[in-house]
Amino acid sequence: MSAANDIIKAARAAKKAAFKLAGISPRKKNSAIIKMARGIERGAGRILRENAKDLRQAKKIGLKSSLIDRLRLDADRIKDMAASLRAVAGLKDPVGEVIYTRKRPNGLLISKVRVPIGVIGIIYESRPNVTSDCAGLCLKSGNSVILKGGSEALCSNKAIFGCLREALSGTAVPPAAISLVASKDRKAVASLLTLDKYVDLIIPRGGEGLIREVASKSRIPVIKHYKGVCHIYIDGQADLNMAHHITMNAKIQRPGVCNAAETLLVHKDAAARFLPVTGGALRENGVEIRGCDRTRKILKWARKAKDADWSAEYLDLIISVKIVEDTEEAIDHINRYGTGHSDAIVTEDHKHARAFLRGVDSACVYVNSSTRFTDGFEFGMGSEIGISTDKLHARGPMGLEELTTYKYVIMGKGQVRR
Amino acid sequence: MSAANDIIKAARAAKKAAFKLAGISPRKKNSAIIKMARGIERGAGRILRENAKDLRQAKKIGLKSSLIDRLRLDADRIKDMAASLRAVAGLKDPVGEVIYTRKRPNGLLISKVRVPIGVIGIIYESRPNVTSDCAGLCLKSGNSVILKGGSEALCSNKAIFGCLREALSGTAVPPAAISLVASKDRKAVASLLTLDKYVDLIIPRGGEGLIREVASKSRIPVIKHYKGVCHIYIDGQADLNMAHHITMNAKIQRPGVCNAAETLLVHKDAAARFLPVTGGALRENGVEIRGCDRTRKILKWARKAKDADWSAEYLDLIISVKIVEDTEEAIDHINRYGTGHSDAIVTEDHKHARAFLRGVDSACVYVNSSTRFTDGFEFGMGSEIGISTDKLHARGPMGLEELTTYKYVIMGKGQVRR
Repeated sequence: MSAANDIIKAARAAKKAAFKLAGISPRKKNSAIIKMARGIERGAGRILRENAKDLRQAKKIGLKSSLIDRLRLDADRIKDMAASLRAVAGLKDPVGEVIYTRKRPNGLLISKVRVPIGVIGIIYESRPNVTSDCAGLCLKSGNSVILKGGSEALCSNKAIFGCLREALSGTAVPPAAISLVASKDRKAVASLLTLDKYVDLIIPRGGEGLIREVASKSRIPVIKHYKGVCHIYIDGQADLNMAHHITMNAKIQRPGVCNAAETLLVHKDAAARFLPVTGGALRENGVEIRGCDRTRKILKWARKAKDADWSAEYLDLIISVKIVEDTEEAIDHINRYGTGHSDAIVTEDHKHARAFLRGVDSACVYVNSSTRFTDGFEFGMGSEIGISTDKLHARGPMGLEELTTYKYVIMGKGQVRR
Repeated sequence: MSAANDIIKAARAAKKAAFKLAGISPRKKNSAIIKMARGIERGAGRILRENAKDLRQAKKIGLKSSLIDRLRLDADRIKDMAASLRAVAGLKDPVGEVIYTRKRPNGLLISKVRVPIGVIGIIYESRPNVTSDCAGLCLKSGNSVILKGGSEALCSNKAIFGCLREALSGTAVPPAAISLVASKDRKAVASLLTLDKYVDLIIPRGGEGLIREVASKSRIPVIKHYKGVCHIYIDGQADLNMAHHITMNAKIQRPGVCNAAETLLVHKDAAARFLPVTGGALRENGVEIRGCDRTRKILKWARKAKDADWSAEYLDLIISVKIVEDTEEAIDHINRYGTGHSDAIVTEDHKHARAFLRGVDSACVYVNSSTRFTDGFEFGMGSEIGISTDKLHARGPMGLEELTTYKYVIMGKGQVRR
């Protein structure tokens, strides 16, 4: 599809398919998802050929090498896509779960039951594996999905989508349950965002620019997965050995992800002992430190932090460091400059820990562990569609359960209201 | 406040207050809410005087008498406002509830904990009691609230708000936790809707026009409480005596509310027995019937339904009636013309009941009872801020729990990710 009309048609068909999908048994959904995994494996050659087209085009227009790397598929990455689909098929089905049942004094039996949301639009950039990952998660949770990938990955996405959709023929899942907006036209996104009659939720996955644009234009509810400006706060009462390991892990184990630390806050009483050791180790590991004035009195080699550093998501071997007076200043700093993603305190003091847990307004607040654990698998939820930095509906890792809503089912014997 | 600057100031103060409010004990919150109730009682004279000003102005500009009635306060209505606040103080506090705790293989203890959302903006029309009702519910759930009432009720709202805010002095609740946008300027709403930095959620309460305008302009998540086009479907296997009582109750017990029935769907096998009796009784009770062609063969006196009737929320003694082939046609009709609010099937057939419960995409689906039960109190939730017709975050009656979000609290002993 390319024109706005085609998108409306696809959205209408997706809505119809969603009504069907809501009533399909877990076994039949899983069998369709496993067929999708096989489809990806069988289509590997076709997917790689189409991916090569995208890569040639990307080089021609001079795309950044980090983006080209994200775009590139190989045999292993395709195997991973199929393995992800099989893993999703193996997860517990959230649909139909009875959240609670209440018997009212008048005899009415009220149950709150988990049901699919309906039609979900995913707007994403680069990585072509998002196409199959999101299709699997949405189908498993009983939702139709409309996929709109980046134009730089269009050939790859079309090939992956083709394999998935062909795999659905002969299964209980109506093919219209997944569709791809195969257009490079930016207006395609704009027209998708107006279809609140058919589409129930939009999830943008990508850079801040994409997310802000989608959120400002959408008439459909949006769950935002903004950047992660994550903090580690080393309290005055911290075990400095533990603080060292947590800081190193949160910064350097995988600096390019959203749950890596970007800012280190250090209590004034710990700074003189902590910073020379851990600051030195960070530096030895290639990390650039941008410190406040007090930090630079201890780490004389550190660069001076500008105001913009406190809200920067480096996704790189850079960390900003600030010395604070107390837990309260740390909390205020995090709530002011953070993105509500993941923040940790390292302390042996229960009162400080409690104040931090209560005061920091983030999806995930940690005591004495690395922020790197914010992840669907690490939380025991299985694969996730993203990490929500919103507060409504889904917060933090967004797994299958967060891709559902609920309805109230009320059983009566003729009750009327008086 | 009146200018955009004042709204920004109030929103910033509300955010600050929300951080404080999140840590205040249930006892202290309840004591503040009870003081607010007393404040309303003590201020009754002042509130009535200000309300009289609004009423005079309303008559002068020729406001409809139904709207003037909604605007009017008297001693009883003021007592009710105070009683509502006391009832909210008596409800279970949702904040701090541990939804679950999981111990992960690496020893991390992950708890999902209910917390306030932050700052909630309520945009509403007419009824001045909304001012105190919403203030009570938001404070109880630990949220700051920014109230923007209709300009026709501005004097009343200012007086009520004054009583509430004065009552907060000397309590643990920071007065900035409640604020009122006391401006008749429509731009005031527009500027409030851009403050996503401070305001976490917008709830519009009022007519469809208001809700659509707010939803289309807001950069802040909106939970919509649209109209209720509720259906009663009389199956071919229905107990027609029960069907009669449910239909009468759903239509005439209180026709002006959103959970009253607007459309009656009748299975072709039941129509000839059901419609003459129940159609006649509706008519005797002053209900105008707008029927499909088949209905009008049975009820020759019925008016012909136009296409617009199937999606009309009459809120009046009018009902549209359609004869359908089977449960599937009833479900399709409801999903096409309904508003996802409340719909009921009357049947003795379990298969038909199950198909209806699964197929109808509404917040509340009933078997053998009146749709009039969709209500926070009837569901055992206590008072509600509205009935959400959205699917994200809150669906159906929106009580205290739905005015909260959650955060993950993770307790470690130095864990790092490998």
